[in-house]
Amino acid sequence: MLEEIRQQPEALERSLSGGIVRAERFKRWMEKRRPRLVVLVARGTSDNAALFGRYLLEISTGIPVSLAAPSISTLYEARLDYRETLVVGISQSGESTDTNLVLERAREQGAVTLGITNNPRSSMARLAEHVFLVRAGKERSVAATKTYTGQVLMLYLLAYALGGAIRISDLQRLPELTAQSLTLEDQVAALASRYRFMRYAVVVGRGLNYANAFELALKLMETCYVVAERFSSADFLHGPIALVEPSFPVFAFAPPDVTWGSVGETLTKLHNLRAEIVAITDPGNREAEARATKVIRLPHRIKQGLTTIPYIVPAQLFAAALATEKGFDPDHPRTLSKVTLTL
Amino acid sequence: MLEEIRQQPEALERSLSGGIVRAERFKRWMEKRRPRLVVLVARGTSDNAALFGRYLLEISTGIPVSLAAPSISTLYEARLDYRETLVVGISQSGESTDTNLVLERAREQGAVTLGITNNPRSSMARLAEHVFLVRAGKERSVAATKTYTGQVLMLYLLAYALGGAIRISDLQRLPELTAQSLTLEDQVAALASRYRFMRYAVVVGRGLNYANAFELALKLMETCYVVAERFSSADFLHGPIALVEPSFPVFAFAPPDVTWGSVGETLTKLHNLRAEIVAITDPGNREAEARATKVIRLPHRIKQGLTTIPYIVPAQLFAAALATEKGFDPDHPRTLSKVTLTL
Repeated sequence: MLEEIRQQPEALERSLSGGIVRAERFKRWMEKRRPRLVVLVARGTSDNAALFGRYLLEISTGIPVSLAAPSISTLYEARLDYRETLVVGISQSGESTDTNLVLERAREQGAVTLGITNNPRSSMARLAEHVFLVRAGKERSVAATKTYTGQVLMLYLLAYALGGAIRISDLQRLPELTAQSLTLEDQVAALASRYRFMRYAVVVGRGLNYANAFELALKLMETCYVVAERFSSADFLHGPIALVEPSFPVFAFAPPDVTWGSVGETLTKLHNLRAEIVAITDPGNREAEARATKVIRLPHRIKQGLTTIPYIVPAQLFAAALATEKGFDPDHPRTLSKVTLTL
Repeated sequence: MLEEIRQQPEALERSLSGGIVRAERFKRWMEKRRPRLVVLVARGTSDNAALFGRYLLEISTGIPVSLAAPSISTLYEARLDYRETLVVGISQSGESTDTNLVLERAREQGAVTLGITNNPRSSMARLAEHVFLVRAGKERSVAATKTYTGQVLMLYLLAYALGGAIRISDLQRLPELTAQSLTLEDQVAALASRYRFMRYAVVVGRGLNYANAFELALKLMETCYVVAERFSSADFLHGPIALVEPSFPVFAFAPPDVTWGSVGETLTKLHNLRAEIVAITDPGNREAEARATKVIRLPHRIKQGLTTIPYIVPAQLFAAALATEKGFDPDHPRTLSKVTLTL
């Protein structure tokens, strides 16, 4: 897992240079076919990438996005009106049964279909009309890391192809920003020791970092067996904050962007409840210290809109280090296998 | 809270008889305006009702549904293309700031807007072009119960108004089915004692009972301070099941319908991991016993499609009883107030 976390700058570099041509081609093809709706369908870590895509696509293109509920097709066998709809399947292996079934049905119903996968020879790559290939190299660890950031990158390219205000030159900075985040490895590993006996936690994020809250929570569940809830900073205040007593551990993605008003307000409330707060932020945010117990600070300020990939890296490093602290093997979580088949 | 749980049959009766006329009128009005997309926007318990609505509307009408992410409007100030779109706000108090803001923006952009609220004099009732009124009576407990089932009922009426195959005569059976579920009160209260020291749990549901998994988890968080995760039975297998060790508590909604294949498979895996399983089911499911540690069985078999309301009642009773067992006051959870204002 740690090795694959470290491979991310090269994996992103490779995925981006391979992906730009395809994105340009797809952009031209879609110009006369602007969809009325984008539907994203995925499971597990890929579903967290989809959650990012939902925010990015709506914010940058104005096209409404829905995250598919596969059972509506696979179990209830409903037929959805997918005219003028782009349906995007996301799967590391490309073999997720329900994701592929939704994609297949959508294509039959006239939707344009796109697959985002790390496996060019997968069922998904054959099924989907268009394919954006993550070129992360084989992922051996059950806990996905480099394919998550690769999928997030492909969703930036998709937003670009759909006319969103995304600059390719900004995306080209992501490998370097990711490399900078990796310099936090020792600091994060030292911090993990404090959480050796943590059994449960809450992870908070909002907007373009809401998906990262889901992704850190999933890594904590999969590799550290920590019962980790994930909330938007707003949803957290609508009920779940009642959980919090002194020392209750909360992890927060706290970039200095339009979400800080909401995340900062939540952290102030949590600070007053004497929660244990770990904030992931960058030098642009000077207000996190006053609220957080511990701050993980990226080396450089990240531009709004580009935070998702550089911010998840210290979270991945933390989960890997905590698993080791707890005496678990992060590469082989109990009960799990790399490809999960569900309907 | 317990008193309001018990009021549900009358509240549903009142909401239904008051709502049918309005639903019929809305149905006629929508006949020439069939939307291409339905967007649901809500927070907290109302957002759980929205999650139910998402499944019910897609299954019964075939119109794609998206659950709004309010920050996209409120923080990122994106303008979404809501032509031919029905935007539905759901709020008990009708005063949820972000929900109302999304509704207001959507109306400006040409969407048809509908408000589902328990308060006819609220901002939401004024803002929305159309209103479906929950007539649950004033809800005093911070933990919402009768307004959740009231909102679910209104979403059935909305599916009916949009041409879904919903029979009003079926809905008229819901008050009686809810009254039958209430007969479980003593049995559920006796069971709660066993979970006196439970600090975390997972709640599993799927399809039309996925929202109930969110709602039971929220009640456990709000009133019992139990860290309660919620998953679809499929998502649970994609990673989080690694959490489960012997005695790990899992609550499952297990109706004998099209979701049982998936829920049953998950329960078999959990049973083999020696988890502590509490299954909520009815006499139509004879396979739950072999897997579950404890079974809460509704008195009568419930028809597929009608389970959501009768199945949540024992879950509400359980949360109220467990809060009392743990020595907490379920009516006044720490940190929370009845109306939460977020942007």
